[in-house]
Amino acid sequence: MTDTVLPADDNGVTEVARGRGIAAWRQIADEIEADIRSERLRAGMQLPTESQLATRFAVNRHTVRRSLAELAARGLVRATQGRGTFVEARPLPYPIGARTRFSENVSRAGREAGGKLLEAYETVADPGVAKALAIAEGAPVVRLDTVRMADGSPISLGNAYFPLPRFVGLVDAYRAVGTVTQALEACGVGDYRRLETRISARLAGVEEAQKLDLAPGRLLLTVESINVDPAGTPIQFTRAAFSADRTELVVES
Amino acid sequence: MTDTVLPADDNGVTEVARGRGIAAWRQIADEIEADIRSERLRAGMQLPTESQLATRFAVNRHTVRRSLAELAARGLVRATQGRGTFVEARPLPYPIGARTRFSENVSRAGREAGGKLLEAYETVADPGVAKALAIAEGAPVVRLDTVRMADGSPISLGNAYFPLPRFVGLVDAYRAVGTVTQALEACGVGDYRRLETRISARLAGVEEAQKLDLAPGRLLLTVESINVDPAGTPIQFTRAAFSADRTELVVES
Repeated sequence: MTDTVLPADDNGVTEVARGRGIAAWRQIADEIEADIRSERLRAGMQLPTESQLATRFAVNRHTVRRSLAELAARGLVRATQGRGTFVEARPLPYPIGARTRFSENVSRAGREAGGKLLEAYETVADPGVAKALAIAEGAPVVRLDTVRMADGSPISLGNAYFPLPRFVGLVDAYRAVGTVTQALEACGVGDYRRLETRISARLAGVEEAQKLDLAPGRLLLTVESINVDPAGTPIQFTRAAFSADRTELVVES
Repeated sequence: MTDTVLPADDNGVTEVARGRGIAAWRQIADEIEADIRSERLRAGMQLPTESQLATRFAVNRHTVRRSLAELAARGLVRATQGRGTFVEARPLPYPIGARTRFSENVSRAGREAGGKLLEAYETVADPGVAKALAIAEGAPVVRLDTVRMADGSPISLGNAYFPLPRFVGLVDAYRAVGTVTQALEACGVGDYRRLETRISARLAGVEEAQKLDLAPGRLLLTVESINVDPAGTPIQFTRAAFSADRTELVVES
């Protein structure tokens, strides 16, 4: 008998209690969840195969499959085609405040920050962008679409808007240095602070889910933020979508 | 021809463009959404009946029904059995910060704050409660379950925990005064501040949806918060779930 779904030394079978009114698949999911929460199964670890789990819990593979689907729906594991099922990382605690910086936030949590530029182009301010940046509707802005990562796992998608002509060199700077903070510095903004953050939630669309390597329909935390320079002038408005499975927003006050 | 779905003076018919590659039901939903966003249709207003809408857009009632379902899925309207379909209130901007107070937050948004005590009882601290309140696991606490409202519409469910014996009189005080802030005052806590808030998202369960008068499966913003007294001692830990359709969390920094 073992407390964990990890291969036991004694090759023990963990029996699920029948007739307790809780379906076997749910009991197995609950046990595996407990192993993940207690970090007996840690982020990135591979779960035993379906047939190993079926043997361990003395159930059929259909039951195991249902348990694994339940765990995926809880955001605790991720099935990767042909490679098996892996434990998801714990949600990254992501501080929201005056000094919010993506790379710093991720590093502080002990993870490696990464980012990928999806697209960058000049466009015009829609009503929301105009209001946030305190510029006229239709005024020129540069838009930067990125996906951001922690330990190689996609955390958020962001569409960031910067007013033109002030930030005409921003895209080139970003391509050269790889972080928004450094790119802003290259454009003469040595410091900035977060003025306001608005948080809501919605379901991931098909394309967003793909970019974030999520199952479609998983939950996103939507985060709209305004950054201002030391004089209080808005320099950046961002519409971001964070995977709610992989992130927890933390406000310290 | 009219710009709005409201009954037009000229009883005009708004034709949907066929063959533009956008389904008629989606075009109608988009038009009604535009009317809501521009406040031509305001919070609490009743939409025209299905047959009125069918006439106005020159489509059949099945198409109208699909449009209304889409609008409900977008959180913009709410169908009430036998009474018709109504425009949902705009999301309440709910400030999160050191001075977060439910009643003040709701009043500041120009809405009337309300609350209903669902249950109150003594229990013991689970690991999460114990950690947040800096007390031992299993230590006695009083738990207050509430539903909170703005203009009579449920906004959030909360389970609030207060350490015993310090807050032994809290439930009676809450019943007498109706707000947590005043009940804490009655227990000798004249002031307090929010130390930390953790935000995530999940889908509403059946029971939660009922209590919040939401369709099951609508999105919730989960908000865990710790309040401390002026000496920095934790006095309250709350696990709350806000309707993401009806609330937007705002962090000012």
